[in-house]
Amino acid sequence: MTQLEAAQTGIITDEMRIVADDENVDPEELRRWVAAGRAVIPFNKNHINGYPYGIGEPLRVKINANIGTSPDNVSLEHELIKLETVEQLGAESIMDLSTSGDLDMIRQEIIKHAKIMVGTVPIYQVMKEHYEESRPETIDTILETIDTHGRQGVDFITVHCGITREALPLVEKRVMQIVSRGGSFLAGWMQRYNRENPLYEYFDDLLTIAGKYDMTLSLGDGLRPGAIADATDEAQLHELRILGELTDRSRRAGVQVMVEGPGHVPIDQIKKNVELQKEICGNAPFYVLGPLTTDVAPGYDHISGAIGGAMAAWYGAAFLCYVTPAEHLRLPSMEDVREGVIASKIAAHSADIAKGNIKAQDWDRRFSEARFHFDWKKMFRMAIDERKPREYRRKSTHPGSQECSMCGEYCALKLRKKHKSVDM
Amino acid sequence: MTQLEAAQTGIITDEMRIVADDENVDPEELRRWVAAGRAVIPFNKNHINGYPYGIGEPLRVKINANIGTSPDNVSLEHELIKLETVEQLGAESIMDLSTSGDLDMIRQEIIKHAKIMVGTVPIYQVMKEHYEESRPETIDTILETIDTHGRQGVDFITVHCGITREALPLVEKRVMQIVSRGGSFLAGWMQRYNRENPLYEYFDDLLTIAGKYDMTLSLGDGLRPGAIADATDEAQLHELRILGELTDRSRRAGVQVMVEGPGHVPIDQIKKNVELQKEICGNAPFYVLGPLTTDVAPGYDHISGAIGGAMAAWYGAAFLCYVTPAEHLRLPSMEDVREGVIASKIAAHSADIAKGNIKAQDWDRRFSEARFHFDWKKMFRMAIDERKPREYRRKSTHPGSQECSMCGEYCALKLRKKHKSVDM
Repeated sequence: MTQLEAAQTGIITDEMRIVADDENVDPEELRRWVAAGRAVIPFNKNHINGYPYGIGEPLRVKINANIGTSPDNVSLEHELIKLETVEQLGAESIMDLSTSGDLDMIRQEIIKHAKIMVGTVPIYQVMKEHYEESRPETIDTILETIDTHGRQGVDFITVHCGITREALPLVEKRVMQIVSRGGSFLAGWMQRYNRENPLYEYFDDLLTIAGKYDMTLSLGDGLRPGAIADATDEAQLHELRILGELTDRSRRAGVQVMVEGPGHVPIDQIKKNVELQKEICGNAPFYVLGPLTTDVAPGYDHISGAIGGAMAAWYGAAFLCYVTPAEHLRLPSMEDVREGVIASKIAAHSADIAKGNIKAQDWDRRFSEARFHFDWKKMFRMAIDERKPREYRRKSTHPGSQECSMCGEYCALKLRKKHKSVDM
Repeated sequence: MTQLEAAQTGIITDEMRIVADDENVDPEELRRWVAAGRAVIPFNKNHINGYPYGIGEPLRVKINANIGTSPDNVSLEHELIKLETVEQLGAESIMDLSTSGDLDMIRQEIIKHAKIMVGTVPIYQVMKEHYEESRPETIDTILETIDTHGRQGVDFITVHCGITREALPLVEKRVMQIVSRGGSFLAGWMQRYNRENPLYEYFDDLLTIAGKYDMTLSLGDGLRPGAIADATDEAQLHELRILGELTDRSRRAGVQVMVEGPGHVPIDQIKKNVELQKEICGNAPFYVLGPLTTDVAPGYDHISGAIGGAMAAWYGAAFLCYVTPAEHLRLPSMEDVREGVIASKIAAHSADIAKGNIKAQDWDRRFSEARFHFDWKKMFRMAIDERKPREYRRKSTHPGSQECSMCGEYCALKLRKKHKSVDM
């Protein structure tokens, strides 16, 4: 039985109890959210060392970091260090997007080591094995690959089921056409074979596989806008409407489902995007990539992404995919991965505070109390990232003094304490 | 005659024409905004090499970078390099917050070299000369210092006129009490002399000096919240109401005025903060510091500040003061200054796009067109920062190829072009 089926039957599973406890919510209320599809618990039965997390608007905002090998960097060890870093910084999910090396082995090792959720994009493997090993990219191959991911313990998979033949002419009007790798591959597939998107056509088979492992479907946005000028256009909305139908079909099949979203979106359209997704997809958890609020900041897309992500999460997105400073430029380095997770965490946490999450607000209060008392050790320990502030202070001209070297002796807090001790 | 007086008399000044041209708005419309106090043109008659910029909700969002010497770093040359960097990255304003060395000389040199707006906080000089040189910190000293700044050509000054004795007990309830240096100094002054804030009591004299040079007043928020827990509290609102009265008095005296705002503000309170300021201060341009949307991200406050700044600007704030990664930790290095300006610029530009600014939207469209065509040279030239993306690509494994090393041969754009050339 999947978490969704259990919830629909009125059963509160062990996983629901753990999530409810972590989130400080009533288990019965969580069960109702899961039953209604407003929350998912992507927790594959075969992810042995995993830990259940809940994703949904009423819960704490979660973040994902993409890792994975590439043709120029095939090192399992490297990926496992990334996983550890990402876990330490507080991400709740990683996606293994490996496209080089022995993909099944790498994935198995990542799942074995991951305490957090593991997601994948099976079509990348199909694509890689097709181009590199001439494996036929048939429907059977696709479903077989998805089954392998499920059997290995993948908690959720991105499947670009919503990009269909009807939408392809709409893409021609765009500045950036298609920027999703999966979307682009499937668009090519449809044109090459003159057939409908196999992930759409064989959606029932996909549901059977997903249900078997309680692997959550993350309905991908193969037509997400890749430029501000393309945001919320016909192509995007066409796909979203199909994702709405598929969300419904997933739920009826007892398969947990979330929906992916853009992309590049100007600030004034973020609220509308979240509202549309909620309406069309029956409040399924919204998983956004960014969104980036401008195209012109390569090298700093983690910042544009933090702006968009914080706003989207505040409006109701449940899950943020990180964006690193390397986006649009290169495969992220270890340092880029760190920066990406931290920026995403700031966005998610800022939204949690705004949404009235008591634990989140308390974290800031206790942090600021430490700041008021110049308790640097406590601040470092409590900060989203401990390393950089520690290093900044160590390298400053006042590493040992109470105040920092920004204002030095004219520190507002110090002035205040001095006046009060003299005058009052 | 000040810009405000001219506008009120129906005169369109040369400066208004330049600003209107830059902003692509009708000069007569701009004149009406200036007359109503909705826009200001901080342009001191004695700032010889200066260039006029407009600040106000209907105009492009402007950004400011703070620079200045400190006891551990007294190098005019260093400050002039910072000025140049800040100008190159597209900031429209710097504030000279020097607190060490020959302040009058340093300021004069910065004004001489600055093509962008120059702001200062005269009370810092009073404070420094009081503590270091035992100069009496009397009302006469304060007014004399302000007059010197005006005579030298400072375009706008921060004056913490709104923190009054009545508000001081309200501060005691706060986690972070007072985090503004000027605010803290003046609170101490009031307690020491058992008198009202001199900048409030002698506000008419201040107006006379400011009017003489057409130096814009930036009414400081000495009681801005320094913690999420302190946001939008009684102390902050008490000060804001007084700033509303002073805004009105400034305008009646023909003195241009803007109003400063917080600080640390959770996302859900940003809109309210902007709306309150507009209502209470008669739509005077709102100049915000951040706001930071969380307290717990030292080392990354430029990111929290970009989230808050973008949102505030979208809701109507006109002017963003940058926050650097060094905030709360140390005096910013040259690199910190760069990072701070870039983050602020991303926030301001993202808001401009959302507000429907045609030039801003066009920038992104043209940039994405270059991206679609893999025109790296054009992208580098057009990017908010050219240096980092250039370096990232140079250090990547595909520095010479069309696509970047993020997706390599599986680049969505490349796949798309390949399929199209084969299939269509």
